[in-house]
Amino acid sequence: MTPIMTEAELTEFMHRAFPQAADDFHVERLTPDGIVMRLRVAERHLRPGGTISGPTMFGLADVAIYLAILARIGPVALAVTTNGSIDFLRKPAAGVDLLGEARLLKLGKVLAVGDVLIRSEGLDAPVARSSMTYSIPPVR
Amino acid sequence: MTPIMTEAELTEFMHRAFPQAADDFHVERLTPDGIVMRLRVAERHLRPGGTISGPTMFGLADVAIYLAILARIGPVALAVTTNGSIDFLRKPAAGVDLLGEARLLKLGKVLAVGDVLIRSEGLDAPVARSSMTYSIPPVR
Amino acid sequence: MTPIMTEAELTEFMHRAFPQAADDFHVERLTPDGIVMRLRVAERHLRPGGTISGPTMFGLADVAIYLAILARIGPVALAVTTNGSIDFLRKPAAGVDLLGEARLLKLGKVLAVGDVLIRSEGLDAPVARSSMTYSIPPVR
Amino acid sequence: MTPIMTEAELTEFMHRAFPQAADDFHVERLTPDGIVMRLRVAERHLRPGGTISGPTMFGLADVAIYLAILARIGPVALAVTTNGSIDFLRKPAAGVDLLGEARLLKLGKVLAVGDVLIRSEGLDAPVARSSMTYSIPPVR
Repeated sequence: MTPIMTEAELTEFMHRAFPQAADDFHVERLTPDGIVMRLRVAERHLRPGGTISGPTMFGLADVAIYLAILARIGPVALAVTTNGSIDFLRKPAAGVDLLGEARLLKLGKVLAVGDVLIRSEGLDAPVARSSMTYSIPPVR
Repeated sequence: MTPIMTEAELTEFMHRAFPQAADDFHVERLTPDGIVMRLRVAERHLRPGGTISGPTMFGLADVAIYLAILARIGPVALAVTTNGSIDFLRKPAAGVDLLGEARLLKLGKVLAVGDVLIRSEGLDAPVARSSMTYSIPPVR
Repeated sequence: MTPIMTEAELTEFMHRAFPQAADDFHVERLTPDGIVMRLRVAERHLRPGGTISGPTMFGLADVAIYLAILARIGPVALAVTTNGSIDFLRKPAAGVDLLGEARLLKLGKVLAVGDVLIRSEGLDAPVARSSMTYSIPPVR
Repeated sequence: MTPIMTEAELTEFMHRAFPQAADDFHVERLTPDGIVMRLRVAERHLRPGGTISGPTMFGLADVAIYLAILARIGPVALAVTTNGSIDFLRKPAAGVDLLGEARLLKLGKVLAVGDVLIRSEGLDAPVARSSMTYSIPPVR
């Protein structure tokens, strides 16, 4: 599961393929078994009371596992999410970004599975936990 | 589980409490055991290839179950999502809205659970299935 | 999604392929989009306080969706569960069987997805809700 | 989240409260943020093809998180599972036990959440991943 793409290549791919997402998410660093992604928290992600919206955190988990997969199989594949689950654990800290640390648990020919811990930057207690399954299309 | 709020009251509440969400979501109708919510699909919800983004569908499921609960316990409560899972089943049809049909399966003093089938308007085969758990705060 | 196997054929298959499970589970009836399975509740399924163990209910959901799939694709396939989620909603009624009503939401070439409502026989309020994804092996 | 019970006390509790489970499961060791549990694989856990049944692995995850919680709040509490999800990743190795390594992600007054990686003993690649939520009853 060694990456075949660099952080710069993943970032460039994300900007090209998902220009909207590229405003929200930043490739922090590749790890031996996954990736760390940053959500640049902005007004539009917040809900009353100052918490970050559930769909935004779901999106952070989704993009983190997606890019962790692409970093290993290359940018050509059109993997699609087939299943996601997320546990919301705590209210995020105010005024700091979220970091999603994804690890790949399986990278098969048909399915890939990963999980993510989401934390407020600088804090240890996780804000959310998520796992996602991707279907990997056959090579043509 | 009879509603104590009307569609108009839920809509008014959503506009006041979640002004951003109110652009995306529309209360279609209350049902005996739940609610039907509409996602007004717009350019910002789409991904390359014309599919609707996963976080957007997660958000539709989330708001549908949230409002199905509030319709029964009233708008004062601050329920929070503690767990969500979603299965993405098919690519949505192009150019039509999504309808999320939520049913409440449990409305307890501490936890509420519901599930949702999401369909492209006018089509029978579901696009996604989701279930969500909400924690209901104690009455003060 | 019309069944190509009968209840009798599914029962015969289950006894042959899963002799242990056949003590616990009974094919109640095929439905247009799924199946109803019965768990014959016995001492070994119970936990202190008289509730039915979580893994037993997970097993009921698993076998129900598995047989709902096989009824449509035939008994040769070796489908395997790739993901399951379950919400435990209420304590089952004492001294009655559980009925799991499964419906198939997707029956694709690679993946099948279904969900299940589990009820104590004779009661309307569901005891548990579950969804499962199966990977369907390629035809050889 | 420091344990207030020892491995011996947890084992004694499990034998008393869940005598059936005590044949299958063994407290391997407490860890700073969780527990490692062993499934002593026996004929009754196997499925055709030699794989370990899904409900058995679900049960391993369930008991691991349950005991990880009890080790921190004491044996009096009657925590109940409210939600579980599991991803089956690989076929377990033949003829070896399974080890479930659980970590607690949240231990609140009302809800506790943990996740588990299940591996065949001696192998690094995980066989399954699971997460569970427990409802913790109020202190009387």
